[in-house]
Amino acid sequence: MGSVNEGSPPQQVSIIGAGVIGAAWAARWLLRGSDVAIYDPAPETERTVTEVLENARYAWQRLDTAPESEGSLSFSKSLGDAVDGAQLIQESTPEDLNFKKAIFAQIESCADNAALIASSTSGLLPSALQDEMSYPDRLVVGHPFNPVYLIPMVEVVGGKQTSDGSISTAISFYEAAGMNPLHVRVEIDAFIADRLLEAVWREALWLVKDGVATTQEIDDVIRLGFGLRWAQMGLFENYRIAGGEGGMAHFIRQFGPSLDWPWSKLTDTPELTNELVTRISDQSDAQSGHYSIRELEKIRDNNLVDMMLALESNQWGAGLAISKLRKGP
Amino acid sequence: MGSVNEGSPPQQVSIIGAGVIGAAWAARWLLRGSDVAIYDPAPETERTVTEVLENARYAWQRLDTAPESEGSLSFSKSLGDAVDGAQLIQESTPEDLNFKKAIFAQIESCADNAALIASSTSGLLPSALQDEMSYPDRLVVGHPFNPVYLIPMVEVVGGKQTSDGSISTAISFYEAAGMNPLHVRVEIDAFIADRLLEAVWREALWLVKDGVATTQEIDDVIRLGFGLRWAQMGLFENYRIAGGEGGMAHFIRQFGPSLDWPWSKLTDTPELTNELVTRISDQSDAQSGHYSIRELEKIRDNNLVDMMLALESNQWGAGLAISKLRKGP
Repeated sequence: MGSVNEGSPPQQVSIIGAGVIGAAWAARWLLRGSDVAIYDPAPETERTVTEVLENARYAWQRLDTAPESEGSLSFSKSLGDAVDGAQLIQESTPEDLNFKKAIFAQIESCADNAALIASSTSGLLPSALQDEMSYPDRLVVGHPFNPVYLIPMVEVVGGKQTSDGSISTAISFYEAAGMNPLHVRVEIDAFIADRLLEAVWREALWLVKDGVATTQEIDDVIRLGFGLRWAQMGLFENYRIAGGEGGMAHFIRQFGPSLDWPWSKLTDTPELTNELVTRISDQSDAQSGHYSIRELEKIRDNNLVDMMLALESNQWGAGLAISKLRKGP
Repeated sequence: MGSVNEGSPPQQVSIIGAGVIGAAWAARWLLRGSDVAIYDPAPETERTVTEVLENARYAWQRLDTAPESEGSLSFSKSLGDAVDGAQLIQESTPEDLNFKKAIFAQIESCADNAALIASSTSGLLPSALQDEMSYPDRLVVGHPFNPVYLIPMVEVVGGKQTSDGSISTAISFYEAAGMNPLHVRVEIDAFIADRLLEAVWREALWLVKDGVATTQEIDDVIRLGFGLRWAQMGLFENYRIAGGEGGMAHFIRQFGPSLDWPWSKLTDTPELTNELVTRISDQSDAQSGHYSIRELEKIRDNNLVDMMLALESNQWGAGLAISKLRKGP
């Protein structure tokens, strides 16, 4: 996979598709010193990227992990220009299999054959994405979390034709970006995170549809309740504690029977009627509409920065990712 | 509901059942100045309560919300002694409907008729819990989150026979305890939080059963990924940001179709065979077994305290609950 120094960020990163996710990838790489070339034909691309980069710079200054000098940023007029010379090409286009496959064909016609191609897809299978590629061994999924310049997790998934070397290179690149890549060893739809997120989302849609709770009430239960726990330990470690000295097996036997209670059967998908979409949208406006999206992003980023610094002071979880960033690229 | 000053904690709280949840309720009330009488026939009750209370005191000292003087703590030899004179009786016994109903019958034979009776159940319906009570109007569910002395959320749910006054009193009591009570307006199995938690738990069990991920990997995806987001904003507010300037309706239309992808059908409940229980237990040991439960509790509490202080510095979410605590009982 080219002559990449272990642990060094790629010198040249290509960002194909610069919406919220692509722009934040660009920001993370620039702040780690990589040169970044962006291709996105949308007219507002420069504005979006500039705004996201400003947020990212401010967050990294507050974390005290901002670099002495950033990589250079360029906006390419063509996909070919953007991928030229890149060691890593990160694709963040809409979640449409055929669209992405067409993009990969374009990338392969221009890029270095040794370049790693990573897709930000949150659910499409790498085996499906790669099945018409000329060099399918270098296609991986690198699924990040919004805001990509702060959240350290990225799921790395290979397809049937992905080489072990490509997985290793992806992990090494993302580690160099200050992230905690997780190799998802079994290729399944939606990987790990979106399986869990989709289950919550489906249940939340029912709660709103049935008039049980508003978006605000559901969010409060999460952020003032179990979400606080999950920012520092996950599902199992928290339940291990809940099991007390009886341990995990005790907890499962205690909690297990409730899986057969009637409420666990409500797992159909509610139909996304206009009425339901409008209800959610209206409730979300009532909850958060007094802030602009830009203001919400700043609130979120300040909270994440301060929580991650708090976790770093305890040398735990996402705080350890900050400590690693301090060592520089 | 008696002569309770609005916003004042109850003078006398009775804790029936003092496992992890009951003991932590006791700690929260003591730290708010209420006198607490505990009844739990388990031989290790005093030790459990003392240990939990030590954790809670340490956490509140770190938060700088510790009171000048705590309420007085007593261990009662009988349920009758424990409920005598209490304005609030909080029941935290095993999740067994008939067991709890028998406890309520005992409570009613001894307690002041005006005392509020609250159950910590995480899923049983208040209508079912109250249907044989003499004064069913004073039964509410007050479902808290572990560790109860730190997490501010508590779900308040009334049954068919619960009076509006009892809901108001419960909310007023829990606010006085420094919590953010959420009135769950529609009585459904598992309320709001455990609906969401159960959906995640079921999905996580499948991931472990199918060998896709270990408990450690699932926990890492949560605590290094979306869990960080959820400690400060919930599901909908985060997705509102993800929708960008297109807003919530745009996000739903974009994300919606994936609900019909095949992975969202994997919603059966995996059978909790001995093999699966052992696998989870072994993976959890490999992940966290080098810490004792006591050590994990301390790590968790320190993280929660520091994250909540971080959120308080931004006057947001769970941090606001800390600011309120500073005003004293």
